[in-house]
Parts: sequence; structure tokens; C-alpha cells
Amino acid sequence: MYTFNTALSSADLREASDGSTSPPRDREVALTETQLERIHRYWLAANYLCVGQIYLQDNPLLREPLRAEHIKPRLLGHWGTSAGQNFIYAHLNHLIAEHGIQALYISGPGHGGPTLNACAWLEGSYSEVHPDITRDAEGMRRFFRRFSTPGGVPSHCGPHTPNSMHEGGELGYSLAHAFGAVFDHPDLLAVCVVGDGEAETCPLEGSWKSVRFLNPGRDGAVLPILHLNGYKISAPTVEARMPDASLMELYRGRGYDPVIVAGDELPGMHQRFAAALHRCHMTIRDIQTRARGEGLHEPPRWPIIILRSPKGWTGPKEVDGIPVEGTFRAHQVPLANVRENPAHLAILEQWLRSYSPETLFDAHGAPAADIDALNPLPALRLGASSYANGGRRLVSLDLPEFGNYGLDVPAPGQVVAEAPRKLGEYLRDVMRRNPGNFRVFGPDETNSNRLGAVFDASDRCAFGQTLGIDDHFSADGRVMEVLSEHLCEGWLEGYLLTGRHGMWSTYEAFAQVVDSMVTQHAKWLQQCREFPWRRPIASLNVLLSSHAWRNDHNGFSHQSTGFVDNVLQRRSDVVRVYYPPDANCLLNVFDHCLRSRNYVNVVTCGKQFEFQWLSFEQALAHCSRGASVWDFASNDDGDPDIVLACAGDVPTAETVAAAWLLRKHAPGIRVRVVNVVDLGSLGAPEAQPHGMDHAAFKELFTATVPVVFAFHGSTWVIHSLVHGRANEARFHVRGFSDCGTTTTPFDMVVLNRMSRFHLAIEALKHSDRLRSSTSSVIELFERKLGEHHAYIREHFEDLPEIRHWHWTDDFSEPSTPPPLAKGQPHGQLFTDA
Amino acid sequence: MYTFNTALSSADLREASDGSTSPPRDREVALTETQLERIHRYWLAANYLCVGQIYLQDNPLLREPLRAEHIKPRLLGHWGTSAGQNFIYAHLNHLIAEHGIQALYISGPGHGGPTLNACAWLEGSYSEVHPDITRDAEGMRRFFRRFSTPGGVPSHCGPHTPNSMHEGGELGYSLAHAFGAVFDHPDLLAVCVVGDGEAETCPLEGSWKSVRFLNPGRDGAVLPILHLNGYKISAPTVEARMPDASLMELYRGRGYDPVIVAGDELPGMHQRFAAALHRCHMTIRDIQTRARGEGLHEPPRWPIIILRSPKGWTGPKEVDGIPVEGTFRAHQVPLANVRENPAHLAILEQWLRSYSPETLFDAHGAPAADIDALNPLPALRLGASSYANGGRRLVSLDLPEFGNYGLDVPAPGQVVAEAPRKLGEYLRDVMRRNPGNFRVFGPDETNSNRLGAVFDASDRCAFGQTLGIDDHFSADGRVMEVLSEHLCEGWLEGYLLTGRHGMWSTYEAFAQVVDSMVTQHAKWLQQCREFPWRRPIASLNVLLSSHAWRNDHNGFSHQSTGFVDNVLQRRSDVVRVYYPPDANCLLNVFDHCLRSRNYVNVVTCGKQFEFQWLSFEQALAHCSRGASVWDFASNDDGDPDIVLACAGDVPTAETVAAAWLLRKHAPGIRVRVVNVVDLGSLGAPEAQPHGMDHAAFKELFTATVPVVFAFHGSTWVIHSLVHGRANEARFHVRGFSDCGTTTTPFDMVVLNRMSRFHLAIEALKHSDRLRSSTSSVIELFERKLGEHHAYIREHFEDLPEIRHWHWTDDFSEPSTPPPLAKGQPHGQLFTDA
Repeated sequence: MYTFNTALSSADLREASDGSTSPPRDREVALTETQLERIHRYWLAANYLCVGQIYLQDNPLLREPLRAEHIKPRLLGHWGTSAGQNFIYAHLNHLIAEHGIQALYISGPGHGGPTLNACAWLEGSYSEVHPDITRDAEGMRRFFRRFSTPGGVPSHCGPHTPNSMHEGGELGYSLAHAFGAVFDHPDLLAVCVVGDGEAETCPLEGSWKSVRFLNPGRDGAVLPILHLNGYKISAPTVEARMPDASLMELYRGRGYDPVIVAGDELPGMHQRFAAALHRCHMTIRDIQTRARGEGLHEPPRWPIIILRSPKGWTGPKEVDGIPVEGTFRAHQVPLANVRENPAHLAILEQWLRSYSPETLFDAHGAPAADIDALNPLPALRLGASSYANGGRRLVSLDLPEFGNYGLDVPAPGQVVAEAPRKLGEYLRDVMRRNPGNFRVFGPDETNSNRLGAVFDASDRCAFGQTLGIDDHFSADGRVMEVLSEHLCEGWLEGYLLTGRHGMWSTYEAFAQVVDSMVTQHAKWLQQCREFPWRRPIASLNVLLSSHAWRNDHNGFSHQSTGFVDNVLQRRSDVVRVYYPPDANCLLNVFDHCLRSRNYVNVVTCGKQFEFQWLSFEQALAHCSRGASVWDFASNDDGDPDIVLACAGDVPTAETVAAAWLLRKHAPGIRVRVVNVVDLGSLGAPEAQPHGMDHAAFKELFTATVPVVFAFHGSTWVIHSLVHGRANEARFHVRGFSDCGTTTTPFDMVVLNRMSRFHLAIEALKHSDRLRSSTSSVIELFERKLGEHHAYIREHFEDLPEIRHWHWTDDFSEPSTPPPLAKGQPHGQLFTDA
Repeated sequence: MYTFNTALSSADLREASDGSTSPPRDREVALTETQLERIHRYWLAANYLCVGQIYLQDNPLLREPLRAEHIKPRLLGHWGTSAGQNFIYAHLNHLIAEHGIQALYISGPGHGGPTLNACAWLEGSYSEVHPDITRDAEGMRRFFRRFSTPGGVPSHCGPHTPNSMHEGGELGYSLAHAFGAVFDHPDLLAVCVVGDGEAETCPLEGSWKSVRFLNPGRDGAVLPILHLNGYKISAPTVEARMPDASLMELYRGRGYDPVIVAGDELPGMHQRFAAALHRCHMTIRDIQTRARGEGLHEPPRWPIIILRSPKGWTGPKEVDGIPVEGTFRAHQVPLANVRENPAHLAILEQWLRSYSPETLFDAHGAPAADIDALNPLPALRLGASSYANGGRRLVSLDLPEFGNYGLDVPAPGQVVAEAPRKLGEYLRDVMRRNPGNFRVFGPDETNSNRLGAVFDASDRCAFGQTLGIDDHFSADGRVMEVLSEHLCEGWLEGYLLTGRHGMWSTYEAFAQVVDSMVTQHAKWLQQCREFPWRRPIASLNVLLSSHAWRNDHNGFSHQSTGFVDNVLQRRSDVVRVYYPPDANCLLNVFDHCLRSRNYVNVVTCGKQFEFQWLSFEQALAHCSRGASVWDFASNDDGDPDIVLACAGDVPTAETVAAAWLLRKHAPGIRVRVVNVVDLGSLGAPEAQPHGMDHAAFKELFTATVPVVFAFHGSTWVIHSLVHGRANEARFHVRGFSDCGTTTTPFDMVVLNRMSRFHLAIEALKHSDRLRSSTSSVIELFERKLGEHHAYIREHFEDLPEIRHWHWTDDFSEPSTPPPLAKGQPHGQLFTDA
């Protein structure tokens, strides 16, 4: 006969609650007998529901003896973390109910799905969003059958369970999401359970410092619960093996005030955990009260609970003579071959019955009245919180009239400007009009990316010591600068998932650091579409402004366009990719992004001085179509010899210059220039929901004329998008490949064979009508390339004819560089990264 | 007149060295006057060379008055970190020379290039590998001109400078690389400078715990120097703003024994830093001596230096009335518009002359004799260390005869097996034969990925407390399990870069976590090809064994094939991608990978029970060709109606089953099955160095017959690879797209429209000859799909005819499931992740 670690006699209860032995630390908050029993029984019920999810396809309440056919054919799921998390959830319910707290439960440990499902079912929130999963015996049967079965729910948390605010499959992001959730949510307590496996990931380790960016005067609080159950999959974890004293030192160093609750004895663990939770809550309240009253002069130490409890707590102590509870063997399915092995079937039945399900659920299969009584008031239930379904809280931004921020562009290609400066002014006013609802994140790139105007509206944020020489730096700031793409992305996700708005900007090459995080967020968005009760949230907006084409001196390591390649692997209904070619288009695109919902918007537009092409009105028309013909550069009269297409600011400049060269040197050629802002518009509408229709595509690109396409990123992107369009083989794409050296701006396009000369040569080679008469022009362009290469390696800058070039309608060679647009400051000192 | 923080009078020197004021902490190691002066002058020389790199294109020694034309037209580079790093480098030289240490200098801070260049030039190692950059005036001129100019060297460290062991452009990996470098290098001291900006990245924060995996008995030591200069780009850094007491607590909690050296006063900083360095060295020696003697019973506390020094130390104190030295404004180019602004030109000249270059360099422009005397013995110079050029240390693995590990495959498709088990046995013996030269890394996936046999050769590694219930866990283990893809990748990179061999295995979906790290390593490999003195190193081998097609219950978050998409953006001369379809192919591929050099090898092969197709000898022949026709499944007699191509274990099984279905139900059809192991072999040889020639391609795929290609990953990968092959439009590719739900194995292919039924239908639709006569067969297959869908949602497993199917030469329907291959254990309990 196996014994299970679940028993709690009335004598135990009395003993613990009257404090006659093993007193809780805080005598005054000892749980009463009723409270203790209620929490304990809630915990047992949740444990029972977790075991049921893993094993049962029928006989959910064990009203019949357990038989093989009640067991699922494939046993999947993870028991190891479940009992510990159920324990926390039950106690948190008590705290919420006692104090009327608005809370979020964020489940960090791998495969915490069973807990969140079970507790949402217990509190009724699961049934409210999944009406077929009723809170009765039949609902429980369906609930069990759905877990880890085809078409069902996975063993980690996700959008399907209403008490989850994030996709929990990939470890490491729980804490960053928790902090993002409480920024500007002064009344929110995010209880973030961090698994000791997850605690080994770098994103998680790097998230502890978020506390240095938390302002208790205006933000809510995160209560991390580090759940040490000893093992990841097979191996012990680093922190589980650290002695208590080392853990205390580490977490104090990280800015926290840790309390350790360890053991497996009952009811002592209940009393001590309840006391710890209470104490942490009071500490948080105290910090907030002081910060919101007389003010804090020192950064506070925030509480954290370190819970050491056995892996697979209350499960089989051993199986086939091998220890299981408290070991790595409890990680997943601690008892296998249950259908085939009658002894295992018997253990499973004993295990399930050790929770006494007949006492936990009533005749209908609903939770017993006392268990139900632990659930907080309906609106405060963790699965009913609007914080876990941020779209319910979403308030649209109060956006300024974006037409007021347009850059004065006298004529196409006559002036140069740093495109993001105007966007910075717009964002400044977005921040001013939406205090507490909009933040800007970045790895200390805001100024470098020419968005510095936002500092007129808000400082950089840090809750700590500031010095006189610091630049716009205070605890009240809402520009979140931390040198970590992971934190920028993770905080922003948490901020958006709980119903606010924001953006982050970074280097294009290093955005790849968070490829996988963005993938997980996109998956969350994609799955939410299946659940209408998951209300739309603001899009995740990423601005890549230090891009691969203009890392002139940073060299090879800073060259990659792979971030877009990665997001494009996601479904097109959650991803949008924009390449605004100039300041006014950038403004148009960004305004659109800030109004959009449920997308990942990736906007790539350089921060360096580049040609300005369109007035605000022209940009508005152009961007609203996604792609259009640029008449000023075209002379095709509806019948081009060649289409020069482009997407991206640098490729656009080279394309327009190529058109200029062709018209100057190959008179008679008929050139059409097409610029693409919204990359998805290229896709056939069958494959791409907002792809332009085939008639519109033909109007831009014709059906047969060769297209030389200069693209900011990888060539395969364009080839994939035009797949299915008429005569797709006529698209000759030039894209980016890293070139392993430092360069001048123009040399970079030369090394990528995408300079104006290369594009013009390519156009001539593909233009059937002119091919025979163009060899001398091709020779001229090739000679220029050679001259240029020699010149820059001697003088470190481009040939004057390149530096001075700008568009001329009469194709005369300009002799001076293009001027700066009106009101554009020179590139600022000190901030160029 | 500006003053610069560089002066050190003889009186100062005497005063500091005789200790009459501001005595160093360790009196007994106080620098002598000669030592101090030498270090100080080395530092000034390195600083001078850094400023020169940023500004000068001529007049390198300032032997003429500085004029505008001596200044580069574009000022690029980063001054902020340089002086501090030069300071460390100079002192480290002293330590190396005094104690005869084998050391590596790892530069973590962003844009530390100027320091590594300057110091390599001073020590002569730069000129040895770049003979045109001589150690004289003309060499210095070229050296300056090359920095951050077209075709030159970037402002971060990389392969061009011989004292760098890694690509330094992307922040966060220095510490992981340092630990990887010292594993199994007992005599190596890796001094790892961590910038306070870099310290905010998550990968860096997660790397501190590496010390828990370091065994001083057999491994070398890492001495981290946390260089707090206060700012990242514009914003203060978190750790720079922490008070000393908090920093001490944090680093003690992380397992270190910190010593803080702070200030800017000279020569006090020299004495205190030298004393700290000496003390750390002695502590490390003591730990190692004890560990290698009587043994250590407690994990040691490893030393770390925290150096607080001003950003842009010794640079202009202020410019145009604004403070610069010690502020964020010193980050990059602290003095701009030098050519245009005579006042700035004058400050620059004063700044450069403040170092007294005429005393630092001799008449020829070489370092003065006393400066040269600080350089360690030639072989110990940091730029001459073979540890920084690991290929020089590389010893080929002693590999067992891999034919001995073949799986017994009686006939194609008759048995199932977990492919990696045999690889595990092979790796076990690789570990046994190569102690100290080969490690296996993984996020606790080794056992789960069926490589558990390696534990017969070596334990999991951790230097800490072990318990009786732990499974193969000790300080002597060389299986490095840490739940961090970043650390697995980073440690392995460090291990390989210093001349050893290894691999890591992980989930396919979560390999994306390190997209960007792998990109950086691939860039290092690619650039090294330009420097013949950079000797080839062992390839970075990644095994993706929990792959996207078989995350049956893990669901959506575990589904992505994007890691390969990312590596394929890198150049084909450094990336190889393999999809072995079964155990014997996996063994063949991996043996090849372990023998290869300078590649990133990505091998994807599932861990679940899958069909076994080829005997060891057949697999050898197949893999050596990269792709071949599978005769047993084909009946085309050299003239197929359709080619069914496949890459990846799951797509291969479906493809073979599709061939079986076609031959059973559409008699008369001539089918050819082609399997692709080495993805690159598909590429046209013009674009892909090891692509098969066009004749071989035609022999496999014909020139005109339609090809239905079932691919493990994204469809664009195949389309891109066959671009340029005859009639590429005939390739109809089915690939992976995430399907957002939990599934059975077979349901997964159904949801991706890549099941045997889908492939067979597609083949019939594309086979011109048979199209008219096949509608009833198509109907049959479509009906099967409907039946199947209903069945699994009721029974949670596949239809018996799917579960029982295996290849039959007479096309009879098998009535029992395929048996396990001989000697294959059942899937182990507890370890399936």
C-alpha cells in the first residue's frame, strides 16, 4: 500500500491553527482552522484535477473502480510542477479574498498548464469562456479529455485558459512580462511564479533587475515566487542546490528581501506560506503607501518568496521500487504504462483516491461548497481579471493630428533628412496626450535613433541614484532604456498584453536576439483569434532604425536583416512589415501601426540622412495603397521597357538614381519606378490577407515586363511574396547579404551589387528592346564602379559625383551635396552608438 | 587651455611607489617605480593609439603641427571604453610577465576594438599577422587609416586582431565564451572584461552562474573584470548606479569574492589595480592548488574585480563648455567636426600631445624600449596566444569506427527505432577516447533526446552539492546541462574557439533562442577565412532532436523550424544543414560533422520511434552522396511519372507511404522516391559550393518531371535552393507551418497537408499521364482523411491502418504495428521533457 503526502487530519488542523506546535512566524496572521482546511481542500481538488487531466478519459470522479479503458491511450503532460503551483494558487485566492486585491497569476515554470486549467475550472472562469466545459461531472470529463489530446490544449499555459496572460511554452519571459504588466497599473499585484529550471535561462536572470525600473508611486508590484522543486528535466537546478544563505545573499543583491518557505510537512507549510504571503503583501502595501505619500528616498527592497517544495508533491513516493516524489522522475508522467500494467493502474487509483474526490466535489461534480468559498469575488478571480485579457482594458490612444508633423519636402529627392526625427516629435505628443497608457522601450537607442524629442515629454526611467550630468533620467520617466533586447521586448509584451500601447526601437541586426520571443508573442496573437472572448490588444510595434545598410563603421557584426525573415515565417494575419522610404512615409506608417490591433508591426527606416521623396499628402496616398508608381522618376507612359521596384530607404534611393542614370544615358528607354511600403501588399490575396488584388498588381508591375527589384532584406522574401503572380520569373531581385567589412554608405550598396550602376546595368540587360544599343552605357557604368572603388579606399569617402548627386529633372549633374530639409538639425554629437 | 588626466610626474611616481602617501592595500606587492612608470607609459601609448585610430589619417606621430587634412573625413569609432580597457591590458601584461601566465583577454564592452588593435600593435602581434602594418611610423599611419574606414577594420574586436578570440560586435556573450575557453584548459586564465552596458544584457547576466559548472581541479579560471564606467550610450547603467555594498552583495550571491577598485587619481589607481590583480591571481592559484591537491569540499568563491573608472578617461574634460570625460558624451567620438572647427582641431592636438607621443615612440615610430619591455615573453603575449587562435591548438578527435554502431535494419521500413540512441552510444565512446577534448552541451535534454548512453562515459557536470537520488551528476562530468540555450551555445563556442570539439542538442523550436548568437559565430568563421593565420577550428554541431513535427502534446509554442531558416541566411561556405531520415544516416552524418572544420552543422533528426530505412552500408552510400533515389520505394525504371522527394524523418516516412499508396491504388503509375540528407546538395553549384552538379541533379530529379517535395522546414528553403535548376517551377513543395494545437503524430502531418494521402493526391494531380484515370483514387484518399480526423478526436490515437502501416512489397495491409529494431529499448520513463 502506498501512502500519499496529502493527509491532513482534523487534529493536525487544530494543532496548526491554535499554534500549539510549529507556530507560524507571524502569529497574528495564523490561518484559522476553517481557512486552513479550505485552502488545503482547494489544493487537493486542484491536485486531483491535474492528475485527472494527465490520465483520465472517463470516470472523472472515480465513482466506479478505475479500469484500463478509463485511461488515455497516450499519457502526456507534466505533473512535477503542478502540486506546488496549485498550492500557491490556493493561497493566493485566500489573500485576494481577504484583501480584495487585483492580481495576476503568471506561471513561469515549464508546463504549468494543468494548474492554470484546474484552478480556472475550480473558480468557474474556465466554464465561462468554454461553455462546453461545465463545472460538473460531464464538464470535468470533457475537461480531462481535452488536455494534451488531438485538437485539445497543451501542457503549458496559453490563451485557452483565462487566467493566463501569456504563452508559457518557451521559458524565461515570465518575470519580464510581469513587470511590463504592472507598469502604470498602480493597483495590480502580479504574482509571478518562477520555476527553478526557468531561473537558469538568461532572459529570466536578466529580468530580476526590472525592479530598478519600477516606480512604486505609479506602478503596481510584482511578487516573485521562486519555486525551487529541485530539478529541471533530469538534472538538479543551480538555485535549488544553493544553500539558503547564498540564496538570501543573491536575492538581496538583486534588490529583493527574500523569505524562504521550505518543506513538505502539513499543515506547517500552509501556515508558513500563508504568513509569508501576508507579510509580502503588507511590505508591498507599505512601500506603495510611502511612495505615494511622503515619497521614498531610497530604492525599496521588494519582497520575494522562495518556496522549496518537493517535485511532484503528493504524488507517488516511489514506483517499481524507485523514488519518484521529490526527484526528477516526477517531472512529467510519474507513473507510465498504466493501461498495460495492473499494478500501475492500482497505484494510480490509490493516488487519485488519496485526495478523497468524493469529499471535494458534490453530487453533480461541482466543487464542494467550502472549496468554492475560497474563490474570490467573481471579478477578482484570477481567471476573470481583465488584466489577464488586456483587450478588455484597452483604451485607444488619443493621437495627435499626424499631418501636423509632416516634413517639408519641396520636391522629390531635393533634400536629405533623418527620417525618425519627425516621428520623434509625433511620439513626444503621443506620450504627452496619453500619460500612463503609452511607453517607449529601447536598448538605449532612443536618442541615437533620432527619437530624442520624446525626452521633452518624458525622461528615461530608473528608480535609483541620479546625477547632475545625467540626461533626462528620473524615476518618473516612461522611456524605458535598458541594454537588453530581451527586456525591451518582454516588458513591452507585458505592457501590451495588459491593455496598453507602446513600441520599441533597436538595431536591425540585434533585433534577432529576440527572434524567439517575438515568435512566441505572434503565436499568442494567432491563437487568440480562435477565442473571441480574448479581446484585441494593441499591436507590438518595432522600429528598426539602425539598419543593416548603414552600419558603416560598425561592420560585419551589425549586418543582418534576419529579424524580418523570422517574423515572416509567422502567419500573415498577425505580422505586418513596412519599409517607409522617407520621413513622411515613416510618420504615416507609424500612425497606422499605433491604431492597429493584434499585429506585430515591423517598421524598418534608417536614422541617417537620406533623400526625402514625398510630401505629407503624397506619402499619405502612397502608404494607404501600400505600393505605387513614382511618377516623377518614371517616363514609361503606361508602357515600360523595365520596371524598377524597390522597398527600403537605401534601395529606394539607388533605384531612383538608377532611373535617373538610365534616362540620362540611355535616352529612349521607358522606365517605371514602383515603391513598396507595405511588403504584404505584394502577396497574392489568396495567400496574404491584405495582398493587393491581381488587377492592381498588374497595374503596377504589368503582366510581362521584367522587374528589377531592389530590396532591403533577403531576396527569398520577395520571391516568396510574388509567388503566384503573373510571370513571377521576371522578378530579378537584389537583396542584402552581409559583406564583412566597414564601408562608406555608397560602398555598401556597391558591395551588395545594388548600387544605382548595378541596377541600371541589370535593367539594360533585361530590357529586350534596348539590349543591342546599350553596351557602351553598360561599359560606362562599369568603369564608374571601378573608379569609385579606388577613390573611396584612398579618400575614405564617396566620389564627389555620388556625394553631390540628387534628382534633377533635366539630368544635369549637381555640383553640391543635397541640402538638409528645413528644420532638420545636424546629426547630434555623442549619440550615434 | 585644457588639461588632461594623463600626467604623472616623477615625484608622483616616487611618492606612490615608496608608499609615503595613499598606500596600496597590499603593501608587499606595491609596484616599483620602474614598474609603475612602465605600466603608466604603456597605457598612455595605447591611449594615444586609440585616439589616433579614431581621428588620424596622416601625421601619426604628430611630428608636424596637426592640420585639418590629417583628420579623417568621417570620424567613427568609440573612445568611451578605450582608456579603461587599455589600463587593464597594460596591467595584465605586467601580471603575465611577472608570473609567466597563459592568459586570454576577452573584451566584452561594446566597441572595444581600438584597445585590442592598439595593444596588439604595441606588443608586435598585430604586425606578425598583418605584415603591412609594421611597428613603425609608416605602419602606424596605415594602422590608423585602416580603422573604421572602407574595407578596413570595425570598432569592435573580431578575427582581424590576433588578441581577440571572438566576434565582439553583439553584446552579452563574453563571459560564456570565457568559461567555455577555460573548460579543460587547466593552465589558462581568461581575463574577461565585462562592460556595464553589456552587464545589462540577459545572456551576460545568465552567464555569471557558469562558475557553478567550473571544476578547478581540471579547468582553468576566469577572472571577470566588471568595468563600470557609468553609461551605456546615453543612459546610466544599472550596476554603475548601485552602491558598493549592493554590488558586493550581488556578486557574493553570484558566487564570487569581489574587490572594488574605483577612482581616477594617478598613480593611486595603478597601485590599487595592480594589487587587486595580484590578489586575484593568488586566490585563483590557491583554489587550483587546493583542488588539485587535497581537494575542495566547498565550492570556492572566485575572485572578480569591479573597476569603476571614468568613461573616456584621459580624454577632453569638456568640449564647448559641456562636460565630456566621465559622462555619456564620451561614448563615441567625444570631439566632432574637427576638420571644420579650428578650436576643436586645437583641442584634439592638445589631447594627443598630452600623452607626449614623442616620448612614447622612438625615432622610427616603434614603442619606446621601456614600453616594449612591458610586453610578456613572445609566446605569452595576448595576441600571440594559441588560445586566441584555437585552430593552432586543435587536435583531431580519436573517433571510434562508426560502423560498429550501426543499427540492424533487416529491410527498409520494417522496424521502428529512436534514431539518436545509436548516436548516443557512438558519442559515449567519443567521450571515452577524448577525455578533455570533447564535451556535450544541452539544456537538460541529453537523456530526453535519447543520447543517455553518454552518461556511461561521463556525468552531468556541476561543482556543488549532490544527492543520492541524483542521476549521473558530479563535478567531474563533461555533459554540460544548463537550462539555457544561450549558455549551451556560448560555452560550446568558447570551447571550440580555443581548439576543442563538441556539440549541443536541444528542441528545434527553442534553438531559435540563439539565432543571433549562431549568426555571430558564423560571421566569425566566415571572416576567419580571409586570414590564413586563423587556423581552422572544429565545427559547431547542433542536434535538433525534439523537432517541430513531434511535439505532439507540447503544442503550438514548441512548433517552429525557424532555426534553420536563420542559419541559411548565412553564407553556404560556413553552414551545413542535414536531415538524416533514420538512425544509420544520423550516425553517418554526425561522424562527418565531428571530422569537419569551420562549419556550423545543423542536424535535425527526431528522437521518437520512426521507421528505419537503410542499413549502415546503405546509409553510408546515401549520405556520402547527399541525396539519392530510394530504389525499394521506386518503380520508375528510369522514366518516372512523378518524383516524390523528401528531406526530414517525418516527411520521408509520409513520402514512402505515399509511394506505397500510389503503387497500391494507382497501378501503372511510375513513382520515383528521392531522399535528401544534405540540404546544400540541392543548390546549384554556382551558388552553393557543395551543390551537386547539374548532371547529377538531372539524374535524380529528371529535367522535366513534376516533383512533389515533402520538406521538414519552410517551403521557401527548397524553392530558393532549386532556384537555377532546370524547370524549377515543377517543384511543388510541402513544408511546415505551425498548426496551433496538440496532435497525434499522424494528425500533425494531416494538419500540415503533408500526410501520405495529401502527397499521393498531389502526385496524382501533377502526373499528366494519369490525371484522367485517378479521380476515384483521389476520392478514396480524401475519404480516408475525413475518417481519420473523426477517429482521432474520439480515440486520441491514429486509425489502426495508420498505426499498423509499414512498407510491404506486395502492398498488403499490415495488421500489427511495426516492431522495434533489435536492441532498442522502449522509450524511457520520466525523461521525455
